[in-house]
Amino acid sequence: MAMKLGFIGLGIMGRPMALNLRRAGHALWVHGRRPVTMEVLVEAGAQACRSVADVAVNAEIIFIMVSDTPDVENIVLGETGLIHRLRAGQVIVDMSTISPASTRRLAQELETRGVEMLDAPVSGGEIGAINANLSIMVGGRETTFQRVKPLFDVLGKNVVHVGDHGAGQVAKACNQIVAALTIEAVSEALTFARRNGVDAARVRAALMGGFAGSKILEVHGQRMLDNDFKPGFKVKLHQKDLRIVIEDAHRLGIGLPGAALVAQHLNALMGSGDGELDSSAIVKVIERMSGTR
Amino acid sequence: MAMKLGFIGLGIMGRPMALNLRRAGHALWVHGRRPVTMEVLVEAGAQACRSVADVAVNAEIIFIMVSDTPDVENIVLGETGLIHRLRAGQVIVDMSTISPASTRRLAQELETRGVEMLDAPVSGGEIGAINANLSIMVGGRETTFQRVKPLFDVLGKNVVHVGDHGAGQVAKACNQIVAALTIEAVSEALTFARRNGVDAARVRAALMGGFAGSKILEVHGQRMLDNDFKPGFKVKLHQKDLRIVIEDAHRLGIGLPGAALVAQHLNALMGSGDGELDSSAIVKVIERMSGTR
Repeated sequence: MAMKLGFIGLGIMGRPMALNLRRAGHALWVHGRRPVTMEVLVEAGAQACRSVADVAVNAEIIFIMVSDTPDVENIVLGETGLIHRLRAGQVIVDMSTISPASTRRLAQELETRGVEMLDAPVSGGEIGAINANLSIMVGGRETTFQRVKPLFDVLGKNVVHVGDHGAGQVAKACNQIVAALTIEAVSEALTFARRNGVDAARVRAALMGGFAGSKILEVHGQRMLDNDFKPGFKVKLHQKDLRIVIEDAHRLGIGLPGAALVAQHLNALMGSGDGELDSSAIVKVIERMSGTR
Repeated sequence: MAMKLGFIGLGIMGRPMALNLRRAGHALWVHGRRPVTMEVLVEAGAQACRSVADVAVNAEIIFIMVSDTPDVENIVLGETGLIHRLRAGQVIVDMSTISPASTRRLAQELETRGVEMLDAPVSGGEIGAINANLSIMVGGRETTFQRVKPLFDVLGKNVVHVGDHGAGQVAKACNQIVAALTIEAVSEALTFARRNGVDAARVRAALMGGFAGSKILEVHGQRMLDNDFKPGFKVKLHQKDLRIVIEDAHRLGIGLPGAALVAQHLNALMGSGDGELDSSAIVKVIERMSGTR
């Protein structure tokens, strides 16, 4: 059944996701900060909106896909934000990766207007967005989840309703902790092999399939061997995601020594001008740390 | 073709490995520190030897499977060690997990007597030893590797000749770095989820299959959810393996901050009397660190 949808944030992730929703036959109102990002969607039959308020007026379910917590807060609660035009019964689906605590506050604020919110951050990157096989981690009410589920199925494959408001963001934070520390693990192991004069490619082959086996060893390990750090998922975004983790850990009093360590290595990559590289470039920090051979 | 084999070290790993070699039809001389460990092998047709020297006199290819570097050094070079009875053309296959540097020294020493050595540590644990599907990481000469390869195929599945003497131990060290840091990663993520009031089982489900997916998330993550730390692979052995890593990193000047961090968490588990638990108990350190809820 065709629905009236909105999509705000048409970057590397948002554009292909919005296109997939439009191609599934839904009416679509879109807004991107830079008008040029809306062109391909208008060609596909979407309506370009000058402001997020215009999206709020037209759409029943509004998706947001932007970079960081303040961006989402501004789109929802800002002077010209959605909140001033939203009507009871509408749904906001925030697919950005932002703070779990802020997510819970936004959901509460929207609820006072009768507007439901879902947090639904994704994993899988640009290729996952284009091929509609993103992993989607969802927080919010079960009834709202069921209402939006057919649209999630248009965007991704592994769609999990993790829990109440913020639970999707918590799951995404966990995903980024595990990904970062596994990249650190593979970086240290391959550096250990090379400094011992052992062929790192053969070590990777010996480790695959055993208990040390992982998607990161397979994909990011190969990038490290090839010295090819084209993103993929950029250092600057992984750094941002770990900042969210560390802030939440600070707020709740959770000691996360490993995550804190890798956050420092991502900081170091920002300092060395490597923010646009894939986050498997953590291996460069480990290599540089002990000097050149 | 039936060969004359020796097997020294009949613990949890060595006994089923020696049994598999005997069942493949080879003549087998065995030695274990505790005579009782030899009984099941004698029943299977092996010859019990009172000393390692007796093994050296009878076997062409001698396997060693003991706990640590000094054990192997003592078996090979000690007062009553193999070295005093070995003849040119014999092969020593050390399947223990020990220091790469010590391995290279042992191989050099044996070479002066015309005896070849392979380092061939394994991954896969007791179940892998029983079911003959160990991963085997081999260092040493190609010709020696080819001579022993049919016997490795009796013991395991993923047999990789990584490089020259010590390269098998380096690969195993890399395996233990990656395993330890991935356990740390999953421990921190699941603790982060729980302290945020989110169902850790659903988080694990949401992460499986994506970039955060790994054998450790699957197996050790489930152990953490079940609070079931039956080994598996014991804390005290993982601690020993990371000691080898940290010693080698010290010797060569390789900074490994992540491995050093997890080594401390394994030390903490030894201090809390948890050395006999599976090393997924690292999650207990992360949980305890921030107090009880």
